[in-house]
Amino acid sequence: MSDYPSIVLEQAVNQMASLPGVGRRTALRLVLHLLRQSDADVEAFSGAFTRLKKDVVYCRECHNISDSEICPICASPRRDHATICVVENVQDVMSIENTGQYNGVYHVLGGIISPMEGIGPKDIEIDSLIERVAKGGIDEIILALPTTMEGDTTNFYIYRRLQNAELAEMPKLSQIARGVAVGNQLEYTDEITLGRSIVNRIEFKG
Amino acid sequence: MSDYPSIVLEQAVNQMASLPGVGRRTALRLVLHLLRQSDADVEAFSGAFTRLKKDVVYCRECHNISDSEICPICASPRRDHATICVVENVQDVMSIENTGQYNGVYHVLGGIISPMEGIGPKDIEIDSLIERVAKGGIDEIILALPTTMEGDTTNFYIYRRLQNAELAEMPKLSQIARGVAVGNQLEYTDEITLGRSIVNRIEFKG
Repeated sequence: MSDYPSIVLEQAVNQMASLPGVGRRTALRLVLHLLRQSDADVEAFSGAFTRLKKDVVYCRECHNISDSEICPICASPRRDHATICVVENVQDVMSIENTGQYNGVYHVLGGIISPMEGIGPKDIEIDSLIERVAKGGIDEIILALPTTMEGDTTNFYIYRRLQNAELAEMPKLSQIARGVAVGNQLEYTDEITLGRSIVNRIEFKG
Repeated sequence: MSDYPSIVLEQAVNQMASLPGVGRRTALRLVLHLLRQSDADVEAFSGAFTRLKKDVVYCRECHNISDSEICPICASPRRDHATICVVENVQDVMSIENTGQYNGVYHVLGGIISPMEGIGPKDIEIDSLIERVAKGGIDEIILALPTTMEGDTTNFYIYRRLQNAELAEMPKLSQIARGVAVGNQLEYTDEITLGRSIVNRIEFKG
């Protein structure tokens, strides 16, 4: 006999425990919490994830998660469209937006180059970044990737790709100040440090 | 503009963050993890909870979560049906089963008496316990509720109810040994301590 008194319960626990960082004991606690909610609440809970998966769109310009073809940031006439901030993921866009220190647009790579995890340049949105820059009108590219080896590798790769792209005019290339402690993720950095690291950004020397 | 770049994303995060102990940042991380999974995987994730809510049954005898009208423990001829272990919830049944020290059946109250949380005797499965005992054939009732004030109150309430039930034969009433540290929940107790607390159970003196 399984540890669980019910197969549907066990299946629900298995699904909950498939989330990163959620152990089986926590999963059981969360599932039993759901079981105490109303039918409508459980329906709303489940529906939110299938709806997200079905309806989510990625912005054609910056590849951020969006509800429409062009995200609100790329669509805004009040943003500086000549400055592109290159980030790893959606959380990083939200973290930088929360600092209130940045008025340009973004480019969401959707990952960083990591040979250990088998993520190469073709697996992330680097080609689309180069194409975007090649169209012209970009004054500055701010590299705001994690201050890890993978982040440094990706920074350098982007730098070389831009150099080889034979651009009519090479935009200024900068990186956020190393106020972010080495080895840390952007999303866990406090807003003051992260905001300062944007204000004090320095030229990327490759 | 909301903090989130997408309304469907925000709705999914809201639902995930409605789980107890899950903050908004963790919720976002979990939702973005789901978004990276296949359509089929997200479907399986969501479906497990609606299916649980729709298909779950509570055992007619012991009120444990079950797939059928009578749970496997109550249906088993190898269990001692003259001994009932009274527990707060499903997790506690699983914890006691894992000790391998108990061969009787259970009665799942589905909560304990807690005036602070507005849970009275009528809100939990106490009437059904008394009815079950009144049918006869029960030699012993083991009270295995948390060693908290609420647990003690519930123990005492059950004791009084049994006394007033004018039973043909009063079963022996025992409680698990206080090896479980006062103030702790059963589900977080190690198996050795919990197993011993069942072996060393003592008569309930009211």
